Amino acid sequence: MILSVTLNTALDLTYRVPRFHVHDSHQVREVVQRPGGKGLNVARVLAALGHASVVTGFAGGLTGSELRELLAGERNITDELVPTAGSTRRTVGVVDESGGSSTQFNEPGPHISPDEWSAFQERYARLLGNGRVEAVALCGSLPPGVPVGAYAQLTREAHAAGVPVVLDTSGEPLRRGLAARPDLVKPNAVELAGITGTTEPLRAARAAQRRGAHSVAASLGPEGMLLVTPDGTWQAGPPRSLAGNPTGAGDSAVAGLLSGMVEGLPWPERLARAVALSAATVRAPTAGEFDEQVHADLLSQVTVEESSEAAPG
Amino acid sequence: MILSVTLNTALDLTYRVPRFHVHDSHQVREVVQRPGGKGLNVARVLAALGHASVVTGFAGGLTGSELRELLAGERNITDELVPTAGSTRRTVGVVDESGGSSTQFNEPGPHISPDEWSAFQERYARLLGNGRVEAVALCGSLPPGVPVGAYAQLTREAHAAGVPVVLDTSGEPLRRGLAARPDLVKPNAVELAGITGTTEPLRAARAAQRRGAHSVAASLGPEGMLLVTPDGTWQAGPPRSLAGNPTGAGDSAVAGLLSGMVEGLPWPERLARAVALSAATVRAPTAGEFDEQVHADLLSQVTVEESSEAAPG
Repeated sequence: MILSVTLNTALDLTYRVPRFHVHDSHQVREVVQRPGGKGLNVARVLAALGHASVVTGFAGGLTGSELRELLAGERNITDELVPTAGSTRRTVGVVDESGGSSTQFNEPGPHISPDEWSAFQERYARLLGNGRVEAVALCGSLPPGVPVGAYAQLTREAHAAGVPVVLDTSGEPLRRGLAARPDLVKPNAVELAGITGTTEPLRAARAAQRRGAHSVAASLGPEGMLLVTPDGTWQAGPPRSLAGNPTGAGDSAVAGLLSGMVEGLPWPERLARAVALSAATVRAPTAGEFDEQVHADLLSQVTVEESSEAAPG
Repeated sequence: MILSVTLNTALDLTYRVPRFHVHDSHQVREVVQRPGGKGLNVARVLAALGHASVVTGFAGGLTGSELRELLAGERNITDELVPTAGSTRRTVGVVDESGGSSTQFNEPGPHISPDEWSAFQERYARLLGNGRVEAVALCGSLPPGVPVGAYAQLTREAHAAGVPVVLDTSGEPLRRGLAARPDLVKPNAVELAGITGTTEPLRAARAAQRRGAHSVAASLGPEGMLLVTPDGTWQAGPPRSLAGNPTGAGDSAVAGLLSGMVEGLPWPERLARAVALSAATVRAPTAGEFDEQVHADLLSQVTVEESSEAAPG
């Protein structure tokens, strides 16, 4: 099973409106509610791929109750969230049915107390210690109160238990996390530039490797993904440009890479799966879901190219 | 006490964002939650004016629990909401701190079953029968499942109990409600044009009177308010144009008119209070609240003019 950590979970609301006008009033036609936060999206995609997940992190307040109620209805996902006194944040994604990408509002997360952080650490250690965790995914932003070096610490503990780690975060939590040598990080080009100071993806990915990551999967938006590993460098893109809602596409890519890791697939196949899942998510009507048929069709069409370029000295 | 009816209650969320960009992602700086729906806003303003209210209507689901929890913390408001199996809707108002008016998203309300509607009618009859209701406010849209003639029926029952009615709604529920001869309706110019077919406020207000309303208070946005009664016609405006958030300004006007009614104030004083409260609400940082000092200052500056124009034959 895969252990997916989301310290800043969210109750994700998707609103469909016929036409979006700024500074106007909108009657929402349809509301979809989902347990959210990157790690929960990853777990949902893993479940659809046939991998059982255990999710942990924090949930609190009535929004947290709502999230856990929705989570209880999902197959292949075990809820090991830790209670927090504050209320789980909401996110609101507004989909404009007349076209265009969605508009997103993310509430700030609740403050995590030192006792709550200790309770989480105990839960994490217990889950890692059960001997059944094949990989750990550490996903998303850190809520206020959680130490900025949290992901570095959680990475070291997983490695001490012999479990590989995929880290998907940004900014200082990513920078600190790299030092603990995660097996794979999945920043987008902007996040990668933010921590390495270079906007050229290949150079930036190599810089992230030098800072500690064994492998780097850099998502390049509609261009696909660049994968830099100790065994080689590959790039893959979807067969065509796909219009839709990009929310959750990065989380689907993480699920593709993770599932390929625990299945022992060769790197190019992991990359193709990540790119196809990501594109299938963009095409799905609801943020963070994907269409299995679109995924299957795309998987056969993704082209993976190996780069022969030597790593710069 | 005043009985305030909100059949389509809402959990109102106000999000403050530094700058609003359509089709972009926003980190919300601050979230404010309030029990909402027009009648609950009216009750909150009445409470601030020293009038106790009883609020009824429907609440359900975890959002309904959240609404009732917040309501329990408000002084001078008694919760007589009736449970519904569906979840109370949310509204999200996004305030752009860089300027401009707010952007509003209103979820659809839950479906009300025939049994729930019967339970509401019983509650309403019981509250009206307690002999302490000085006025009834019927406010806002009707959720699906409630008969479109609901406000006409509730108006007749209040009148049978000797209690005056203020009706604040729009469209077909307003059109049907007029036939039951409410004591006062408070449409805005657009709503008034919608049911009377004329955009000139005085002509439209007189048309609404002919359709059944004893008196009509037509809100004219920043221009103030036109009040057409059997005793005369008055117009009043704020002393100056006020920038801010107009959400809830109409509900404050209803509270001003209602409080003036139960206090037995002359019409011009009721109108001045409605205009000052409405303007003070526009100036308040959170939708549906008002600044008492701004209200007191404005009240002394509102000019009320009586119109000598005879009613057209």
